[in-house]
Amino acid sequence: MPEATDFSARLTALEDREAVRELIARYGPLADAGDAQALAELWTEDGEYVVTGFATARGHAEIAALIEGPVHRQLMADGCAHLLGPAAVTVAGDVATARCHSLVLRHEAGSFVVHRVSANRWSFRRTAKGWRAVRRENALLDGAEAARALLKGV
Amino acid sequence: MPEATDFSARLTALEDREAVRELIARYGPLADAGDAQALAELWTEDGEYVVTGFATARGHAEIAALIEGPVHRQLMADGCAHLLGPAAVTVAGDVATARCHSLVLRHEAGSFVVHRVSANRWSFRRTAKGWRAVRRENALLDGAEAARALLKGV
Amino acid sequence: MPEATDFSARLTALEDREAVRELIARYGPLADAGDAQALAELWTEDGEYVVTGFATARGHAEIAALIEGPVHRQLMADGCAHLLGPAAVTVAGDVATARCHSLVLRHEAGSFVVHRVSANRWSFRRTAKGWRAVRRENALLDGAEAARALLKGV
Repeated sequence: MPEATDFSARLTALEDREAVRELIARYGPLADAGDAQALAELWTEDGEYVVTGFATARGHAEIAALIEGPVHRQLMADGCAHLLGPAAVTVAGDVATARCHSLVLRHEAGSFVVHRVSANRWSFRRTAKGWRAVRRENALLDGAEAARALLKGV
Repeated sequence: MPEATDFSARLTALEDREAVRELIARYGPLADAGDAQALAELWTEDGEYVVTGFATARGHAEIAALIEGPVHRQLMADGCAHLLGPAAVTVAGDVATARCHSLVLRHEAGSFVVHRVSANRWSFRRTAKGWRAVRRENALLDGAEAARALLKGV
Repeated sequence: MPEATDFSARLTALEDREAVRELIARYGPLADAGDAQALAELWTEDGEYVVTGFATARGHAEIAALIEGPVHRQLMADGCAHLLGPAAVTVAGDVATARCHSLVLRHEAGSFVVHRVSANRWSFRRTAKGWRAVRRENALLDGAEAARALLKGV
C-alpha cells in the first residue's frame, strides 16, 4: 500500500512545520504574559537562548530567569509586545531551522515606541515530547553584519 | 482500515488549524480595505468583538459598524495598517482558542507611528459554514494586567 | 478507493497553502540578509515586483537589482527589517493570491523608526519547480485608495 506510506510522510511533513510554527508563535504571548516556565519549556532542557550583547541563557532555569528578571519585568510594567515576523522554516528529518524578525514595542509616556528590531535564527529538534527549540539566536538589526547573517538561507 | 481513520483525523487537525489561522490573517486586510461586511462574517452571527475601553460589538451589524464608524474611517483616510502577530492556536474538538498581538500603525504628517499595541484572545467555533470567531477580546498593552492576562496559555 | 483520492486532494490543498506561506515568509529574511539572488528566485523568471511610486522590476535580474541597489544597501547599512504580516491566502488550482501588510523598520540615530507601512497583493503560480510568485504589488498605506484596494478580498 504505497499510498498509505506516502500519505503518512506528507502528513508528517506538514505536522512538523505546523509544530515548529506553533512553538515560535507561542513565544511572544508567553513572554508578554510573563509565563516564564511555559516559555522556557519551548526549549529542550539543555536549550540555549542567545541575545547578542545582552545575555546567553542555557537550560530552562536560565531562560525562565530572563522573563523573571528586572529588565523584562520593567518592560511588562511599562507595557510591551514581543511580536515575531513570519518564520521561514526548513525541516530535515528530526531537526529544523527557522529564520524570522522580532520586534519589541514599548509603551512610554502614553505612546508606543519600537524598542528593539532583531534578526532571529532558531534550531529545533524532534524530542519524545514533540518539537522543541534547541537554540535561538537573536541580534539587533542596527547595521551589524552579524545580525544579517542570522537571516541568510540554509 | 485504521490508517484511513488516522489519516483523516490527522488531516482534520491540520485543516482546523489552517482555517483558524486564515480567519485571523483575513482580519487585517479586510479592516484596512474597509470591507466591513466580509470582516463581520469572520464571526458567527452572535459573535462578539470586545475592544477594552473602546467598544463591545455583538453580532455582524455591530461588528461591521466598527469598520464603518468615524474612528476607523478617519484612520483609513489618514492611512493605517492593522497588523497581527503570529497566533498561538489550540484546537479542542469543535472549539479553538488563539492568542496573538496586534498593532495599529497610522500615517501622520508624512511618517508612520505605532498607534496601538494590543493583546488579543480569540475563541472560535466550528459551524456548518466552517470555522468562525465567537469572540475576540482586545486590550491595550499599556502595562495593565488585564491585557497580559489575555496572552496566558490555555 | 475514494478515500485515497480524497486524502491526496486534502493533502495537496494544505501543501499548496504551506508552500505559498513559506515563499512569503522567506522574503523578509532574504531581503535583510541581502541575498538578492535567492530573493529573486521566489518569483518566476518573468515575475514582477511593483513597488508603487518607486520601481517596477520584471524578471530575476531586475528584482535582484532592487536588493543590490543603493536604496536597499543604505537601509541594510543603517539597519533594517522587512517584516510581513500574516497572509490571507486563496488557492484555486494552479494559481494563488495572498494579501498582507508589510513594514520596513529602520535604525536611525540609535533608535528604530517605522519607515514604510504597505499593502501587498501577491499572485502565485504552480510551476515545475514548485510554487513561485508571479507578481507582488506593494503600495504605501498613506491614505491612498490604491493601497487599500490591494487588500480587498478575492
